[in-house]
Amino acid sequence: MATLNVDLGERSYPIIVGAGLLGDGALLSPYLAGDEVLVVSNDTVAPLYLDRVTASLKDRHLSCQILPDGEQYKNLETLQTIFDTLLENHCSRDTTLIALGGGVIGDLAGFAAACYQRGITFIQLPTTLLAQVDSAVGGKTAVNHPQGKNMIGAFHQPTCVLSDTQTLATLEPRQLSAGLAEVIKYGLIRDTAFFNWLEVNIEKLLAFDPQALEHVIIESCRHKAQVVARDEKEVGERALLNLGHTFGHAIEAATGYGNWLHGEAVSVGMVMAATLSEKMGRLEKDQCARVRELLIRAGLPVTPPRDISPTDYLTHMALDKKVSAGRIRLVLLDAIGQARLVSDYPDSLLQDVLYEFAG
Amino acid sequence: MATLNVDLGERSYPIIVGAGLLGDGALLSPYLAGDEVLVVSNDTVAPLYLDRVTASLKDRHLSCQILPDGEQYKNLETLQTIFDTLLENHCSRDTTLIALGGGVIGDLAGFAAACYQRGITFIQLPTTLLAQVDSAVGGKTAVNHPQGKNMIGAFHQPTCVLSDTQTLATLEPRQLSAGLAEVIKYGLIRDTAFFNWLEVNIEKLLAFDPQALEHVIIESCRHKAQVVARDEKEVGERALLNLGHTFGHAIEAATGYGNWLHGEAVSVGMVMAATLSEKMGRLEKDQCARVRELLIRAGLPVTPPRDISPTDYLTHMALDKKVSAGRIRLVLLDAIGQARLVSDYPDSLLQDVLYEFAG
Repeated sequence: MATLNVDLGERSYPIIVGAGLLGDGALLSPYLAGDEVLVVSNDTVAPLYLDRVTASLKDRHLSCQILPDGEQYKNLETLQTIFDTLLENHCSRDTTLIALGGGVIGDLAGFAAACYQRGITFIQLPTTLLAQVDSAVGGKTAVNHPQGKNMIGAFHQPTCVLSDTQTLATLEPRQLSAGLAEVIKYGLIRDTAFFNWLEVNIEKLLAFDPQALEHVIIESCRHKAQVVARDEKEVGERALLNLGHTFGHAIEAATGYGNWLHGEAVSVGMVMAATLSEKMGRLEKDQCARVRELLIRAGLPVTPPRDISPTDYLTHMALDKKVSAGRIRLVLLDAIGQARLVSDYPDSLLQDVLYEFAG
Repeated sequence: MATLNVDLGERSYPIIVGAGLLGDGALLSPYLAGDEVLVVSNDTVAPLYLDRVTASLKDRHLSCQILPDGEQYKNLETLQTIFDTLLENHCSRDTTLIALGGGVIGDLAGFAAACYQRGITFIQLPTTLLAQVDSAVGGKTAVNHPQGKNMIGAFHQPTCVLSDTQTLATLEPRQLSAGLAEVIKYGLIRDTAFFNWLEVNIEKLLAFDPQALEHVIIESCRHKAQVVARDEKEVGERALLNLGHTFGHAIEAATGYGNWLHGEAVSVGMVMAATLSEKMGRLEKDQCARVRELLIRAGLPVTPPRDISPTDYLTHMALDKKVSAGRIRLVLLDAIGQARLVSDYPDSLLQDVLYEFAG
């Protein structure tokens, strides 16, 4: 078991990673606000792990809400059902909301916790690699709008994150790969050595090697926690965590949320960002090839669906939260391990990349 | 023109009060985040004042959204329509959302600003006395849930509040009285001299005397700003601002939101709180009578609808945000000018008050 602290002053919280944490009530207990607890999960995760969690909380006044599984349910309508449950159970301001599931459950439950009575206590129990290395850390919560991903949300930090590595054993290979996209991202934006390590150990991760997985979860959380501690509200450095996400969000939106996994879209988005970086003479050609190569070895797609036109990309990208003064800002690579938020890329080169990837 | 500063560190902001401020673009300009502006108003206020505001912003990229007027529209469905407008207009994170209207518009637009892209810039242009002395100050935003008032919301501070006293001239007398309920509340909880002043000057206020109105707006904002600066998230002193609100919210909920004005319900709630305080031997009998008397002179109701039963009160009060560890906490009076949050009132005396007021 390893613990990392996310340093946010009064709102600092621990990320605890290890095998079999889900059943450990004593570990959870100090982070509850009071006796009232609502666990929010989905119909894929609940049959596997909900019993462990409820057993560990059996001395509490406990309610559960099981949502349908899928990104297509990450919307205001589903959020409303969480509020309904909280009010039907007469939940007070001292209620703790626990998210048991992947990124969608964490985002939904976290946003509900941010808004219910203007903010209640929140705990993350992420059960996918993607959630454990990315979405459960950092306090971003949100739902999608039909016209844009994560457009409605809040910054709301959990009181703790417990990542049980045993839950990864039931993950589909496609979900594991999607999580690895974000892991590779940390190497690309700020840690050359970590990227090199991933090139050597990617097969171990795909074989669910527990020690290798624990290592990448801890390293990924360390990177994200450092960035978030320095820039909680994303006014600067935190934007670098969005490498591949502006292209990726456009792919998710254009294909309809839920058809492409977030990590899959980010994988393609990182290849597109690397390609633009190479065209601009920022990133060396062989480094761009290594990015693509590692993503392929991780079981990830590196080309988008051919039916998304350059215009589709630009329309969706114009709605991205990184737009400033009408200009789409992109995270680009100077090298493996070094990223930068760029506004002054030549539009013609962006067009070239979009045409190339649109086939 | 008078200016008050709400001291919240980096998020400090001015409250500017005076006649004819709405048309003053130069006054507004420093508080805008960028060129994109969405003004949210309602179909009562917009025909009267929207033109002045849009004329003062004519060099900006401006959109307007006119909502139906009324507390019954302060819900998630209406909130969604604001998000729809923001996305249809491709509004970026640098958009400024301006609320032009009373408390409902301020709460809706403020909550939309809190959530859109996890928080955009927000300005309040309150046009009712209630909003100018209370809801526009302090950063609380929310929508109602069918099972509870203000149950879903956020703390989101504006970058400025501009209160144009000229807008009060078009206010219905009933709305003016509702605003005076909150003004009287400040005297009751923390300023004996202000309460005494109101006893002398209440008729001037009811006659829309501009100087008397400017005085009570400034004094009320000063009180609220002081309390909010010391306790932004309502962990202590700020709860005193809810004098009369726990009973009042129950009346609003039991009668259906929008039938009773918020200030009217708070007026009755303050009389109920004063009566309980008197029964407990905290508040002297003649002071309790003075509370009731001033509210009557201000044109406010002091008895609730007779068909709300004690059980109705307790059911709605149990959902109040001030419930802690299963116990309804109430703001009670020790004297005119001195309030206290109390959990250890005798249940039998609360029952007595509820039976008395239920007829």
